[in-house]
Amino acid sequence: MLEQIKSIQDLKNLSVKDLPQLCAEIREKLIADVSQSGGHLASNLGVVELTVALHYVFDECDKIVWDVGHQCYVHKILTLRGENFLSLRSKNGISGFPDTEESDSDAFNTGHAGTAISAALGLAKARDLRGENYNVIAVVGDGSMTCGMTYEALNNVKDTKLLIVLNDNNMSIGQNVGSATLNMSKLRVGKYDRNKERLKKFLLKVPLLGKPTYKFLRWCKRRAKLGYVRNSYFDNFDLKYVGIIDGNEVKDLVYYFTKIKNNVSKPTLMQVVTKKGKGYTPAEQDPESYHSVNKAGASADLLESSAVVGDALVRLLEEGKNVAAVCAAMAKATGLAAVQNVYPDCFFDVGIAEEHAVTFAAGLAKGGVHPFVAIYSSFLQRSYDQILHDVAIQNLPVTFLLDRAGFVGEDGKTHQGLFDLSYLSQIPNLTVYTPATYMQLSQMIEWSVGQDRPIAIRYSKHLLHDKRGFDGKWNRTTVAQPKVYLLAVGARLSRLACEVATKFDNAAAVEVTSVKPLDEDLLNEIVACNAAVITMEENVLAGGFGQSVTSYFVKKGFAARVVNLGVDDVYVKHATVEEQLQQFGFDVDSLTEQVKNLLQ
Amino acid sequence: MLEQIKSIQDLKNLSVKDLPQLCAEIREKLIADVSQSGGHLASNLGVVELTVALHYVFDECDKIVWDVGHQCYVHKILTLRGENFLSLRSKNGISGFPDTEESDSDAFNTGHAGTAISAALGLAKARDLRGENYNVIAVVGDGSMTCGMTYEALNNVKDTKLLIVLNDNNMSIGQNVGSATLNMSKLRVGKYDRNKERLKKFLLKVPLLGKPTYKFLRWCKRRAKLGYVRNSYFDNFDLKYVGIIDGNEVKDLVYYFTKIKNNVSKPTLMQVVTKKGKGYTPAEQDPESYHSVNKAGASADLLESSAVVGDALVRLLEEGKNVAAVCAAMAKATGLAAVQNVYPDCFFDVGIAEEHAVTFAAGLAKGGVHPFVAIYSSFLQRSYDQILHDVAIQNLPVTFLLDRAGFVGEDGKTHQGLFDLSYLSQIPNLTVYTPATYMQLSQMIEWSVGQDRPIAIRYSKHLLHDKRGFDGKWNRTTVAQPKVYLLAVGARLSRLACEVATKFDNAAAVEVTSVKPLDEDLLNEIVACNAAVITMEENVLAGGFGQSVTSYFVKKGFAARVVNLGVDDVYVKHATVEEQLQQFGFDVDSLTEQVKNLLQ
Repeated sequence: MLEQIKSIQDLKNLSVKDLPQLCAEIREKLIADVSQSGGHLASNLGVVELTVALHYVFDECDKIVWDVGHQCYVHKILTLRGENFLSLRSKNGISGFPDTEESDSDAFNTGHAGTAISAALGLAKARDLRGENYNVIAVVGDGSMTCGMTYEALNNVKDTKLLIVLNDNNMSIGQNVGSATLNMSKLRVGKYDRNKERLKKFLLKVPLLGKPTYKFLRWCKRRAKLGYVRNSYFDNFDLKYVGIIDGNEVKDLVYYFTKIKNNVSKPTLMQVVTKKGKGYTPAEQDPESYHSVNKAGASADLLESSAVVGDALVRLLEEGKNVAAVCAAMAKATGLAAVQNVYPDCFFDVGIAEEHAVTFAAGLAKGGVHPFVAIYSSFLQRSYDQILHDVAIQNLPVTFLLDRAGFVGEDGKTHQGLFDLSYLSQIPNLTVYTPATYMQLSQMIEWSVGQDRPIAIRYSKHLLHDKRGFDGKWNRTTVAQPKVYLLAVGARLSRLACEVATKFDNAAAVEVTSVKPLDEDLLNEIVACNAAVITMEENVLAGGFGQSVTSYFVKKGFAARVVNLGVDDVYVKHATVEEQLQQFGFDVDSLTEQVKNLLQ
Repeated sequence: MLEQIKSIQDLKNLSVKDLPQLCAEIREKLIADVSQSGGHLASNLGVVELTVALHYVFDECDKIVWDVGHQCYVHKILTLRGENFLSLRSKNGISGFPDTEESDSDAFNTGHAGTAISAALGLAKARDLRGENYNVIAVVGDGSMTCGMTYEALNNVKDTKLLIVLNDNNMSIGQNVGSATLNMSKLRVGKYDRNKERLKKFLLKVPLLGKPTYKFLRWCKRRAKLGYVRNSYFDNFDLKYVGIIDGNEVKDLVYYFTKIKNNVSKPTLMQVVTKKGKGYTPAEQDPESYHSVNKAGASADLLESSAVVGDALVRLLEEGKNVAAVCAAMAKATGLAAVQNVYPDCFFDVGIAEEHAVTFAAGLAKGGVHPFVAIYSSFLQRSYDQILHDVAIQNLPVTFLLDRAGFVGEDGKTHQGLFDLSYLSQIPNLTVYTPATYMQLSQMIEWSVGQDRPIAIRYSKHLLHDKRGFDGKWNRTTVAQPKVYLLAVGARLSRLACEVATKFDNAAAVEVTSVKPLDEDLLNEIVACNAAVITMEENVLAGGFGQSVTSYFVKKGFAARVVNLGVDDVYVKHATVEEQLQQFGFDVDSLTEQVKNLLQ
């Protein structure tokens, strides 16, 4: 059936009764394709019925905004990107997130959590101002309800026609936290639904009157959910509330969406319960692990930076240090789950609330506990103001742990850690460290506890296995009279710099372990021997490491020949990390060529 | 009475009956002193009783976090900074915000809205982890309830002993917005309180039984507010709710604080209603204008940048352009009130919700309406991720209007607009314009509507009156053979550069009207005539305009002599703008010296 859908109109021509079969086929395709291509599996398995029902009921001119966006696979399959689906997250292939460049069916780009209602409200207001007439739908996971931006948007939806589908699967990437979020879902599952199933089975067995009675009761229930059920949280926002609906029952969804589409003119929130990983037992049982699956054949290197973080923090607590760990809905991914398991009192998961996480940490620090805030580089962007205004102005001893710094590969544009060196270096009092080896990361974490100022440590998913440690200085390869210095930030670039430098007898590779402060001794050495310099960073050039080095030389009056390698004012799309590195000249051949040019 | 308070202990030794008199004296001092020094008057007049009651009941080791912080004057007067109070907001004088460097009585620095509960929760958790025993109190205005960060914090307070005082005066800086915020305050004022007053007057006139009856009724009411009143919004957060309390009745406040201090161990939110400007008729009647008063004798230059913004936007709407104006709780201050008055449908005040404002604008742009987002430079820091992730990735035509860029004078560290050139320039697709004259600002606003990409325009409170317009190029003074170029960003520095350049016959002053893109023709001219360069910006040096120029030269292989003037990795304290400029070498004498050095 799926193969015969060549347009949304083909979908609409199906009978409602056919939809469960279509859903089953889509689910099969998802499991088959994503197991090969890698990607977000569990969340997409959960929203198969929801997505089918939305496209079945709403029109092509209507706009769906997918919060976070990693649950858009079914939407992409239905909007004619199914054939090419094995190219998911590959270079020049289908993006793993909604992308307006890729298709007009994608109404708005998403990636970070909590943006959908704001964007949808903007679309809806623009529609009204232009006197146009289409529906705007935001599909939002319950995890995003922990996010302040979602609240800000809800606080402004009054009087605007807009449908918010709250896809409630009781999960962020990890388990949800937060009082309001828990209260929102109080009615969820429970006895009511189990009794409903029993009654249905019983009535359908009763001859003659059984089926009409069941249908009548179902009608009553549906009318009640449309008209009378209220929710104490959403009541605060002047929303029409509809719920709770079984989000894996496609016929129910079609019924409710049709009613809402035709009859409701004010903002409406429909709460549906779906099962993350639905239909694929391993993913149902462990949705956090199946949140994102690796490409088939990709080796999962077990020793990741996050493991080093977990070990180091647990060790500090074992030593009786007054430290705490703070994360934003990603305990496993950041490595903090290790702390959670052994020292739960010293572990704080605040939900998808990066702003609160940082200012909360500032409070901890001011109260005499040294916090480690572990948030991916890309997500910490949301805390720029809090780092600057709440932590750094007071020069508080907080350690930031930024995993996934630099190129992140398949997640693409919205998730790249390519801005942190710039947005962190510009903040007064804050220092920025960049380990290349596991040992350095571990030592930096330990060392940071004694410091009396904020420290950011940024690193990629994997670091080098070398035993090289951290003594506050950069590490230079030994060369008699270097004419070219390769200053490389992070594990991947340090390794590359070493590899290229060894090809020459007058090129030195430098492992840059801190971007702020700079290692002035080493820079002065370069000035002294009048060498040329190549700076290498997985970061935008503007405000990054390279410009900082260049400025240092110019200030010293040193007319350096400097080449700054990095990302030049573009967003970097999905591809493998290796392809992304190559795009910016970070491969052996290109770099060798650069060195040769400078040696001429 | 106020003069006799030499320590918090002196305050505690007073009888409760004396407190109204003390409050009256404090109010008198506030009006007298702030009228001279300038500062935030209305909000401080509103919290006199609240602050007195807090210090009367709670202990010196307890920690009060003042959200936003501009309402801390009474707190500062009571914590022994009253004598020096006329130095408020002056260089080396008392800061207008809580400052831990200034006094140990200030528990945490604040400035931007919505941070207090996060910080207080951090302090409280640190206390519990360390096994210490003090109270933590966050005092939060109702305006901050529109702020997502506040929600994120409330979502995490469960089980922690913490008092939140919601100071409800039905105001942000402007009028409040938002459904939840309005619902929170439904019970506010109203008939109930007026009837209460009548009853009190009546009963106190009845002989014998009247007074005991009144006292009994008051006792009943107080017990009820402590025990039984609930609030549908705060119920969601597992908080104990106490309210609504008259926040200008110091005896009531003392009663409730005492009860809460002694008996409550879970998070408690106490909602008090205060009157902004209380006790000073002009401020009561127009609290927005009295939010911040100017220093006595300071001339209020009426033609401000904000007026230009309002005029330009209204003109665009008059011309039938499809534009909209978005602000975050500051319609008057940003100039958008002009739009609100004439085209209310095209005006959106989203509350203190800078994150939502930006993504909402992205939605508007995607829906075909060109939004102008007017947020002060310092506050837009909170939208760094939304600008990068929601606007710029999709290259959406949104115009950002950043008022108060550069030095802001008396508000000090937390409010400086000294980071925007860096945090904006590093964002791909985004362009950054820097008008020096009113005419340029007006023309840039108009011009931006036709553009197909995001544009940031940043400017100081006042711009130059000159008629010089904007043609996409920088403006250079005419000099035959310049040996030194002064590249100056913004009104104040452009004027200074001109003044100094005219002293030399071979120095050219350049008005830099765009920081990104750079005017490469002009930079190439500098390369061609091998001149020296001084860059001048009211911004941190890291990632700023100067580094961008320096990098351009180095990339061209031009061994330039470049001096980058700007803020070198420090926070800039309160003082006049002139004093702040001087601190970084932006005065005629220093700059003349710099030019002379380069000409040698």
